[in-house]
Amino acid sequence: MQEAVNPTPSFSSSHASAAVQQVSIALDERSYAIAIGTGLLDEPAFYADLPAAASALIVSNTTVAPLYAQRLHAVLQQRYANVYLVTLPDGEEYKTWETLNLIFDALLGHGCDRKTVLFALGGGVVGDMTGFAAASYMRGVPFVQVPTTLLAQVDSSVGGKTAINHPLGKNMIGAFYQPRLVLCDLATLNTLPVRELSAGLAEVIKYGPIADMAFMDWLETHIDALLARDVEALAYAVRRSCEIKAWVVGQDERESGLRAILNFGHTFGHAIEAGMGYGAWLHGEAVGAGMVMAAELSCRLGLVDTAFVARLTALVQRAGLPVRGPVLDASDNAGRYLEWMRVDKKAEGGEIRFVLIDGPGQAVMRAAPDILVREVIDACCA
Amino acid sequence: MQEAVNPTPSFSSSHASAAVQQVSIALDERSYAIAIGTGLLDEPAFYADLPAAASALIVSNTTVAPLYAQRLHAVLQQRYANVYLVTLPDGEEYKTWETLNLIFDALLGHGCDRKTVLFALGGGVVGDMTGFAAASYMRGVPFVQVPTTLLAQVDSSVGGKTAINHPLGKNMIGAFYQPRLVLCDLATLNTLPVRELSAGLAEVIKYGPIADMAFMDWLETHIDALLARDVEALAYAVRRSCEIKAWVVGQDERESGLRAILNFGHTFGHAIEAGMGYGAWLHGEAVGAGMVMAAELSCRLGLVDTAFVARLTALVQRAGLPVRGPVLDASDNAGRYLEWMRVDKKAEGGEIRFVLIDGPGQAVMRAAPDILVREVIDACCA
Repeated sequence: MQEAVNPTPSFSSSHASAAVQQVSIALDERSYAIAIGTGLLDEPAFYADLPAAASALIVSNTTVAPLYAQRLHAVLQQRYANVYLVTLPDGEEYKTWETLNLIFDALLGHGCDRKTVLFALGGGVVGDMTGFAAASYMRGVPFVQVPTTLLAQVDSSVGGKTAINHPLGKNMIGAFYQPRLVLCDLATLNTLPVRELSAGLAEVIKYGPIADMAFMDWLETHIDALLARDVEALAYAVRRSCEIKAWVVGQDERESGLRAILNFGHTFGHAIEAGMGYGAWLHGEAVGAGMVMAAELSCRLGLVDTAFVARLTALVQRAGLPVRGPVLDASDNAGRYLEWMRVDKKAEGGEIRFVLIDGPGQAVMRAAPDILVREVIDACCA
Repeated sequence: MQEAVNPTPSFSSSHASAAVQQVSIALDERSYAIAIGTGLLDEPAFYADLPAAASALIVSNTTVAPLYAQRLHAVLQQRYANVYLVTLPDGEEYKTWETLNLIFDALLGHGCDRKTVLFALGGGVVGDMTGFAAASYMRGVPFVQVPTTLLAQVDSSVGGKTAINHPLGKNMIGAFYQPRLVLCDLATLNTLPVRELSAGLAEVIKYGPIADMAFMDWLETHIDALLARDVEALAYAVRRSCEIKAWVVGQDERESGLRAILNFGHTFGHAIEAGMGYGAWLHGEAVGAGMVMAAELSCRLGLVDTAFVARLTALVQRAGLPVRGPVLDASDNAGRYLEWMRVDKKAEGGEIRFVLIDGPGQAVMRAAPDILVREVIDACCA
């Protein structure tokens, strides 16, 4: 799982697009920048302000490492005397302690110290595990996110949530730990499978209903361009998503309140992911169907009208995402969903806290009667 | 490993000594109190300001749980609807991920949420693991330290260092995470084996050479009273130790500088513990011999005179602690020590950073030539 990278440089020094955009996450001494553009991955300028150290460790997976690790290694070698790579197996089902321990084995095996900088090169799973490893190794070393999936660029790499899964629940063990920098190289999205592109769009779409209906209008106009990987459309979608996330996280870093709205669609979604077995549905796919279910619940509580539900459902569908949840249990499907949702992190004292839409563009956290939730599940599962 | 405690109360409501002392750790919104006295364990008043929650989990071990878990359970039941207990195996060799996971299994198995309060009832190992579990469960829940060993009362329960061991190094995986309260019930020290009492005195003694020679004078006068478990002597030793630790931690919570002086004796000590296999020597025993070695190194660097080394050695010996290190490797003992010390967390880029005494009562962090370190090891190992 762990190897030296052939340090042959494979880049010309100035192919970064001039149109680099920057979003700032304002968290006092933990503030950092998100840089968004094309070809940033191996531009030395973006690494110039990182802390000095004797060594760096790139954490990637078996899918992404062959595509980009060599280029990242080459640029990091200009700054760190020793650059190591650890390659994890690819997939949500590997987001476990055992896989996390491969990172610790690499760090200790290479004699890395508490200034060593970690680089997460990959999607959400790589980012979440690298972040938790960085939070925990010697009680905290610096780390950088280099997200290569749309989902990671618009959501998981930003805001400092890190975690691994436990057999009894997703993301149950982790830390709030902020990266020093997030580098979103839009060119890496060209190698993303279409199914993962759609999954990433789920986390883009969520920002509309919870915070910005003008962005939802824009998405309805540009969803085809995004699916065609138009760079300008992607740049705007990533930037606007990061801006909204930065605004929310800047107010509530540790999710004591507001930040929970970013979990729109995730309560139903977590039940889908856990109930199907991690990895069967992509996270974004589960969030896609979960948003439709959460909108339907909002509607049945009188918070939005059926036209809004239909509009969101249509956008989710156009993004190539499922709009109906799977049947987790033929005899008591709603009961099984409820069981999984009660171990969601947002639950308190056994009461499930839903993120609902309280009129388009505005989210609210609240509980809902089981009977209504059961009706929604019955109505929304295939 | 995990059971319900028989909730029969076994205490009268007012046997706490009037002479409760309090030390404050000043860390802005993470500030908290250390309460020191006799019979605090089941005094409801000390728990009154803790956050409200539906449930609490007591984490203890097979040695301490039979002695005190029932009393703690009884007092917590007055405040939390559900109080659970998880009992870990006892010993430094169990400070592993596998044991930590027993805590997560208990939390998730009981449906604990992100307000659940954890209580560490035991010594340093229980405190370090409970703290790291609290830091990581759902990315952070509140926790309370109820240390029942002298070592935990004067050192490990205070200051927010939490961790587990990795086969390649001690305390390599953890977090800085502060408790909400530390309750030092001196009465629990009556059940402490004499070997552990001595081990705890190592961490008391260290505060003299690094920060307060008047305290060292006091210890020389009162070491026999401490070994006889005189309550007033213990109360002063615990309070003064906590005051010095609070002063250091308040200036440098995350050990970017000053805080490292608290590791006096620990660099050599970690080599002893790791080299002998975790658990063979108690942590305090390794620190005892380690302080003598660090003092000897300070002397050979011209920082203190031989009289100081003799004085510290005599005090360590009177406390019932080893003053010579073990032979870790008959063919190259110094080489083996150096190998272990290079993976110490304080090492940077392979250079070992020693905490040395720069004149009595003052510590300094610095490197030392390998040849001198080898001489010290050769001179100080049995």
